Amino acid sequence: MAAFDEATAVQARADGTTFDVELGEAWTIGPDRPNGGYLLATMGRAGLAAVAGAGGAQPHPIAANVSYVTSPSVGPALVETEVLRVGRTASQVRARMLQGDRTCVDAMLTYGTLHEGSDPWWGEVPPVELPPEDECRGMGPPPGAEGGRQAPPSFRLSVDERFDPACLGFLSGEPSGGGELRAWFRFADGRDVDPLALLFVADALPPATFDIVSTGWVPTLNLTAYVRAVPAPGPLRIRFRAGMIQDGLVDETSEIWDRRGRLVAQSTQVAALRVPG
Amino acid sequence: MAAFDEATAVQARADGTTFDVELGEAWTIGPDRPNGGYLLATMGRAGLAAVAGAGGAQPHPIAANVSYVTSPSVGPALVETEVLRVGRTASQVRARMLQGDRTCVDAMLTYGTLHEGSDPWWGEVPPVELPPEDECRGMGPPPGAEGGRQAPPSFRLSVDERFDPACLGFLSGEPSGGGELRAWFRFADGRDVDPLALLFVADALPPATFDIVSTGWVPTLNLTAYVRAVPAPGPLRIRFRAGMIQDGLVDETSEIWDRRGRLVAQSTQVAALRVPG
Repeated sequence: MAAFDEATAVQARADGTTFDVELGEAWTIGPDRPNGGYLLATMGRAGLAAVAGAGGAQPHPIAANVSYVTSPSVGPALVETEVLRVGRTASQVRARMLQGDRTCVDAMLTYGTLHEGSDPWWGEVPPVELPPEDECRGMGPPPGAEGGRQAPPSFRLSVDERFDPACLGFLSGEPSGGGELRAWFRFADGRDVDPLALLFVADALPPATFDIVSTGWVPTLNLTAYVRAVPAPGPLRIRFRAGMIQDGLVDETSEIWDRRGRLVAQSTQVAALRVPG
Repeated sequence: MAAFDEATAVQARADGTTFDVELGEAWTIGPDRPNGGYLLATMGRAGLAAVAGAGGAQPHPIAANVSYVTSPSVGPALVETEVLRVGRTASQVRARMLQGDRTCVDAMLTYGTLHEGSDPWWGEVPPVELPPEDECRGMGPPPGAEGGRQAPPSFRLSVDERFDPACLGFLSGEPSGGGELRAWFRFADGRDVDPLALLFVADALPPATFDIVSTGWVPTLNLTAYVRAVPAPGPLRIRFRAGMIQDGLVDETSEIWDRRGRLVAQSTQVAALRVPG
């Protein structure tokens, strides 16, 4: 079983709407802090099972909203689901991740049916231009691995993200100022990305504001992802752009294309950002 | 009291988390079918009261996700709220609108603090170009008012929306093909638009796909709105654009500027769309 599938596995309880999950330390962004897209994908898998259990026929997440309330810890958690609607075109599920009686993440998931190989009827979005994969590079070892120390667990070891070197100036304190990160994406173990995994990929890059200004972490308050197509096997291209920074908030938008150059997912988020001055 | 404030008024029950509302027929998009942005703004007002009741200090909605489960009827409804988090920067509320035991709308609301007169620290978005207000025009009487009959109730009578004539070709069966609607916006009674009312304005134009292809109604499955600034008094400018149409779904994005040309709100939605062939 691929690492992603194992880490996002859900175990239904007898009621068919509550799911046990085990948050893995291989999918964290820092000590005991699971990656947000990983949490969303796990909830997306629980919602899929809940829809099927309620007689819904939709196999793919097509829209997801997620609010991060408080970060869960690595380890066991519960996902409670409520199927709000089973429809012909779409089914809708409210999902909540809890540890103890603490709500950690709240999500609304909409499921639909995407057809493999679909092409746009209108509004094709050309893929971001990127140097070839072998001319792009990773961000280096995760923080904490400096000086030859063993790298702490990080989701960055579970993925193969190769950035356009032109947007990696922030690693040496010289952001380009463009507010845009561009990268190739694969899972490290070669698992192909399917619609469910796109919920994870939608939030798999560092903050796009790193390409503008050096700040502390940029916590996502609320993220929305749309899955638009079943990706063709192979590497994905991601463009992640900062919008407007104002009043301590920033909006960031991602677009994801498959190997064939088809737009397969979009996301937008609003995050809290403390800028100097 | 302005019509919008009256129509979105909420009455707290003793528990302080459940609110009675009265959905007004002056805010419908068709017979007995309240406008989606109107429903969201009403829930936004309930969430604001719930945050204040829980000791939260945030006066403005800054992000809202909404899923339309089934349309409520005009008349009394309930909004149940649950404050998930009261924070220093942001507070988060889950809200649900019900009629009887039927969930009609589910929303996640994030509240924060916007500062009047703020300007972008980075990423200014220049306002859409529009002919002067007096060279733009409305869509004409609502459907059902043809042949001199009295117009049925419609939210279009509660607002003063003036479109760039270049994007109104769809009214005579000749959409421009650009997938973009541009309009000036005011409330008909002159009420200024504040952050709460922006939740309504974020979904106040017809589907942007009308500028591409003639279809039936384009039901929104899921909408996300970000409020970015306290608007200066005066008319707003709205640009509403269709993204990609594929697999029976379309994404549509709106941007809203105030009289000073500052971006005050953004929204994105995914809607179901049946296209010919």
